[in-house]
Amino acid sequence: MKVISEEITMQTNCCNDLVDITDQLKKILASTNLKRGILTIFIVGSTGAITTLEYEPGLIKDMQELYERLAPINKHYHHDDTWGDANGYSHVRASIQGSSLTVPFDDGRMTLGTWQQIVAINFDNKPRRRTIAINIIGE
Amino acid sequence: MKVISEEITMQTNCCNDLVDITDQLKKILASTNLKRGILTIFIVGSTGAITTLEYEPGLIKDMQELYERLAPINKHYHHDDTWGDANGYSHVRASIQGSSLTVPFDDGRMTLGTWQQIVAINFDNKPRRRTIAINIIGE
Amino acid sequence: MKVISEEITMQTNCCNDLVDITDQLKKILASTNLKRGILTIFIVGSTGAITTLEYEPGLIKDMQELYERLAPINKHYHHDDTWGDANGYSHVRASIQGSSLTVPFDDGRMTLGTWQQIVAINFDNKPRRRTIAINIIGE
Repeated sequence: MKVISEEITMQTNCCNDLVDITDQLKKILASTNLKRGILTIFIVGSTGAITTLEYEPGLIKDMQELYERLAPINKHYHHDDTWGDANGYSHVRASIQGSSLTVPFDDGRMTLGTWQQIVAINFDNKPRRRTIAINIIGE
Repeated sequence: MKVISEEITMQTNCCNDLVDITDQLKKILASTNLKRGILTIFIVGSTGAITTLEYEPGLIKDMQELYERLAPINKHYHHDDTWGDANGYSHVRASIQGSSLTVPFDDGRMTLGTWQQIVAINFDNKPRRRTIAINIIGE
Repeated sequence: MKVISEEITMQTNCCNDLVDITDQLKKILASTNLKRGILTIFIVGSTGAITTLEYEPGLIKDMQELYERLAPINKHYHHDDTWGDANGYSHVRASIQGSSLTVPFDDGRMTLGTWQQIVAINFDNKPRRRTIAINIIGE
């Protein structure tokens, strides 16, 4: 049994940038030579999120529209009174979507469906360099 | 310390079928004889989700009404322009609810509340045979 | 490699009480002397939730307003017909927010952002003593 820490860093765009990180995660998993276990993906920072999605342009727009219904950009947020950084909607969207995902792997492969990708989201109101912490436990 | 891969496959109904999988998970955990660790439950496919819920008919309806408020069936989805399979709402609901859950266990039992069940959801717009990947790490 | 079970119990207030448990989790992690692994946090009971949030008074209000948009207190819930305990909104909010979070740690520290706290939420319609199950796996 081994426990391995890894990290992905990447540049993301403003506001509602959904990035498919599945291939990077597959490469990291393959490099460990582990066969069976779990891979935990955690986005660092309170305006980012992780989820699974069929990553195609239509659904990306549909998710962005969902986030706009949940926490509209033009609404007033109390957070913006606190810091004046105008990203209250970013925090609210990130906290309801969630920052963490744990995926089993077996025979050296994550148990994803064919059209099920792992997606990191930058909700912040500016482009951000984002860090994603990865932990793999298995044998 | 051991790491064990398991799987549940089951037939589900159309659209918003919430299925209580707690008893199946308890049996799987008991069969491992592990006392302390974590159990990760991951639904395979991008129109399914996992959550916890007091599984009773009233709350099942309440959750279905929540999903309808979040992503109405009769709304237009860009995903349906892409593939024409009319299940845009299924994907959106699945991605906001989430595909993964990790539950600690101790003394051989999951740390669930008395009225807290683990529920798998088929959001797809047709009955589906669904696979749920299970990973157990512990001692 | 070790696997450790811990627990936090705490008194919470009614309805939408968000409690920052980050410092308690840091102390628990430090007491294990583990350097690398994952920490799983699971709230026991079907009217509680766990998420990450920049824990400041403005955002706490913003999240409470989000929960009110998602599942208004004054709406009719089928759950309340079942049990008459008038906390249907509490269950719905808890199930969409989620009961579980897994966070990697490395060099003995959780991979949290500077303004990213771990928050437990009591959605129930009365003050509650809540239990949070913690599992730590690592080396």
